[in-house]
Amino acid sequence: MADDLSRLCVHTITTRPWSVEEAVDQYAAAGIKGITVWRQWLEGRDANEVGERIRSAGLTMVSLCRGGFFPASDLTARRAAIDDNLRAIDEAAAIGAPLIVLVCGASPDVPLSEARKQIQAGIEAVLPYAAANGVKLAIEPLHPMYADSRSAINTLKQANDMCMAIGSSLIGVTVDVYHLWWDPDLAFEIARCGANGLLFSFHICDWLTPTADLLNGRGLMGEGCIPIPQIRGWVEDAGYSGFNEVEIFSDRHWARDQHEFIHDIINAYQEHS
Amino acid sequence: MADDLSRLCVHTITTRPWSVEEAVDQYAAAGIKGITVWRQWLEGRDANEVGERIRSAGLTMVSLCRGGFFPASDLTARRAAIDDNLRAIDEAAAIGAPLIVLVCGASPDVPLSEARKQIQAGIEAVLPYAAANGVKLAIEPLHPMYADSRSAINTLKQANDMCMAIGSSLIGVTVDVYHLWWDPDLAFEIARCGANGLLFSFHICDWLTPTADLLNGRGLMGEGCIPIPQIRGWVEDAGYSGFNEVEIFSDRHWARDQHEFIHDIINAYQEHS
Repeated sequence: MADDLSRLCVHTITTRPWSVEEAVDQYAAAGIKGITVWRQWLEGRDANEVGERIRSAGLTMVSLCRGGFFPASDLTARRAAIDDNLRAIDEAAAIGAPLIVLVCGASPDVPLSEARKQIQAGIEAVLPYAAANGVKLAIEPLHPMYADSRSAINTLKQANDMCMAIGSSLIGVTVDVYHLWWDPDLAFEIARCGANGLLFSFHICDWLTPTADLLNGRGLMGEGCIPIPQIRGWVEDAGYSGFNEVEIFSDRHWARDQHEFIHDIINAYQEHS
Repeated sequence: MADDLSRLCVHTITTRPWSVEEAVDQYAAAGIKGITVWRQWLEGRDANEVGERIRSAGLTMVSLCRGGFFPASDLTARRAAIDDNLRAIDEAAAIGAPLIVLVCGASPDVPLSEARKQIQAGIEAVLPYAAANGVKLAIEPLHPMYADSRSAINTLKQANDMCMAIGSSLIGVTVDVYHLWWDPDLAFEIARCGANGLLFSFHICDWLTPTADLLNGRGLMGEGCIPIPQIRGWVEDAGYSGFNEVEIFSDRHWARDQHEFIHDIINAYQEHS
């Protein structure tokens, strides 16, 4: 059980109704220690100022979500994706985020094998700029149900393999229990990820039965069937000592009073994570 | 391209509005050569008579769907599952089906590793009765999005491994493009499946973008992003020469005139499979 909050981080998308300012203030007031900011929350704002507000509130800026979405069937779109990732690096540097999480992308009109090559090429294209700005990048393997349009990287093995192929200390992996809990090789690949210094961040939530929506039907920890404490144990055995990041896409929870939801997140974190 | 219909099979659930009698008559009239019967279509009927009707219509009885659902948190439920699989074997023998497809089962309150043991134990418990009745069993690995409640076997590698562990000529695998298309190891595992004599049947449909429903949001071949001809090529290179079975769960297509749908299935089979 995660009995203290020193490693608890919440994603701004988890409390989607709140602006980044509300999120910062409310997370800090609730005793949450880390925040991961989604880029939409920076629209119309100065990322430097948001970063200052986060630090002033005593929160750790854990990561910026998200870069990626590299594959496309035409070169113009692939170049636009690289430009967008360069902007994400600018934003990460400005807000003070040490890490950008990559949802690598996929497109129904690009074969998976080709999409995977485009992802690697996209990462390699932006890595020097990330290095110059002191920002790391993490490949987040996504659940296979997103292989058509969100990510062609669908297992931790694939993410580990791609990091090894790229071979830079700036590229690693985000392990998210929602995407990976079903994988029979998960324990092995988490150990391999840690042993190679690739385990950059860790996301938690739960899988509901039934899952009514492929995107926004996630559960709070303890509401579903993912063995979160077991997976967290594997992650910690692999040497991870960073934040446990609560990332929940849930129409049901977004419709609630977000103060009550934060209260429930903290309880669920302590009892079911 | 599958330019003739000699290996085209349709599942009764694909044309859900039709009774088994309507399905048999309409499939035969349309030039379809094989049928896979779902057990719900036998309710209130004599399976022997349905089998005779199928043979009289000139259709090949390809398989019975579905057995399985072995895992449960209590022994009573696990014994009930075994009983149900024995009944499925009786039904297969009566209707003249050489094969039962297993949706192996999963339960949100049973850890996946335990569920996998229960699946293997369940298959081994019913295998002698299958042998005595001349019926084979096929493990159908299901998409990881069903790992909570439908199957703890989610990759072809797992299905192949379990067949090898059981070690009987009566247990093999059903390859379904919907469940497996995303798997980076798919070509390798299909080859391995064939090389070990485990490739018992092959199901086709398509993955839609977006997929609005986890269960009944499948597409007709060509409507989605699955490279069906490529996967069929791997399957045939692995020595498979059986039926290509069209299994589509689709609220959208079920709401249509089923004669028109059958017409579209045949066109899609010839153009996109």
